[in-house]
Amino acid sequence: MISVVLIGAGNVATHFYKVFQNADNILVTQWYNRQLNNISTYKNNVDITDDLNALKPADVYIIAVSDDAISEVSKALPFQDRFVVHTSGAASLYDIDKKHRRGVFYPLQTFTKDADVDFSKVPLCIEALVKEDLKLLVTLAETINSTWYKISTEQRKTLHIAAVFANNFTNQLYRISHEITESDQIEFDVLKPLILETAKKIQNMSPYMAQTGPAVRGDKKTVRKHLKRIKNPQHKALYKLLTDSITDTHGRKKL
Amino acid sequence: MISVVLIGAGNVATHFYKVFQNADNILVTQWYNRQLNNISTYKNNVDITDDLNALKPADVYIIAVSDDAISEVSKALPFQDRFVVHTSGAASLYDIDKKHRRGVFYPLQTFTKDADVDFSKVPLCIEALVKEDLKLLVTLAETINSTWYKISTEQRKTLHIAAVFANNFTNQLYRISHEITESDQIEFDVLKPLILETAKKIQNMSPYMAQTGPAVRGDKKTVRKHLKRIKNPQHKALYKLLTDSITDTHGRKKL
Repeated sequence: MISVVLIGAGNVATHFYKVFQNADNILVTQWYNRQLNNISTYKNNVDITDDLNALKPADVYIIAVSDDAISEVSKALPFQDRFVVHTSGAASLYDIDKKHRRGVFYPLQTFTKDADVDFSKVPLCIEALVKEDLKLLVTLAETINSTWYKISTEQRKTLHIAAVFANNFTNQLYRISHEITESDQIEFDVLKPLILETAKKIQNMSPYMAQTGPAVRGDKKTVRKHLKRIKNPQHKALYKLLTDSITDTHGRKKL
Repeated sequence: MISVVLIGAGNVATHFYKVFQNADNILVTQWYNRQLNNISTYKNNVDITDDLNALKPADVYIIAVSDDAISEVSKALPFQDRFVVHTSGAASLYDIDKKHRRGVFYPLQTFTKDADVDFSKVPLCIEALVKEDLKLLVTLAETINSTWYKISTEQRKTLHIAAVFANNFTNQLYRISHEITESDQIEFDVLKPLILETAKKIQNMSPYMAQTGPAVRGDKKTVRKHLKRIKNPQHKALYKLLTDSITDTHGRKKL
């Protein structure tokens, strides 16, 4: 049995609370938040507190607060030599006060409030300085059916940039296609199955192998027609830059 | 019962053949290809031919050949006033010879050879000059459980550009995140669930509402840290341009 104290009341803390409550070998000993009313819904199921001095012993303390607050909260914990982790993709392991045994338990996924989370589809990036602590995080991840990856603080910084490309920037391309369809009275819905299939395709095939379209074909005529037709200068600049990126990747001449 | 003659032996023609064969109210009267051996596997199930002069009467002739060949093939058909459509996203309806009743039956999806296609997830963009012909395409689409959209030739040109952003360019962002993860010995697999979730999210929410991350938060500190860390100049340029695009979309100050 792994005992856990949760700290924070945001999306990540709440989703962890729910999945831990349903796991056989995990006990949420306590849930702390600065403001009790954010977690008071759960008071009949778990010991809640807004007093750091009232924190109970546990195998791991999970700090799921905003990046800027991690350092301060970890410092304010009135004990030392216990295992304390944060859940952030951007913060360093060393943001946790050095009086603790430190670690990271970062779920790499986009969470929607209210919607239930299937943790078997949430990769967990784990890090710890002590071997036994790492083992505990592995067990924690496996108990909630997550796939885990050992990722260092430096790697996590790189991974965060890759996630910005794969998630935020990809979503902005969806937004741009939405703008383009709307500009010509076409329903954006017509593109949704294609968007889903594009994401599904690379689950079993490298993006390199999955590439199609005018740029990878070297179809200069179509690229020119498209550039002529795109009026928005930002869309045009992106079209050019992404086309160059594709031709570079595939060793083709610039179009 | 709608009778169909298929022309061409590529991915699109083959997938249409399979779904039409399984539909109750569609009869594939004949399948033409310049080279018989490409379709000879099916000779026991359908009348195959490599002779345009042997083409039988049908309610609709579906030309599923490369864009450049549409005009020539339609001209070579030894009849007139019959209903002839092509399946291309980029070609004009007017690429079909004007001796025919003309139309377009364009499946907006990325097809993988061999993998079976679920046409309920393939939007069909249809166009025809005569009302009755359009009605036939609607029936054809509905018979194979596809959602159809009436899209003009001009709209289809716009849609093709939007699809390049939503599919090819999105896939290139996946490729770039692959490069970024590999550069730091991180498995690309860790990003795959995020990629899938990002595509799923916009099925029921606008990309505008779905946006998250440093750019939309106006998180200057993180954007600067990322730009400092990205070494590849093309990745850097894309990061800047896509961040600008997000801040513009959401009416935020440039970061």
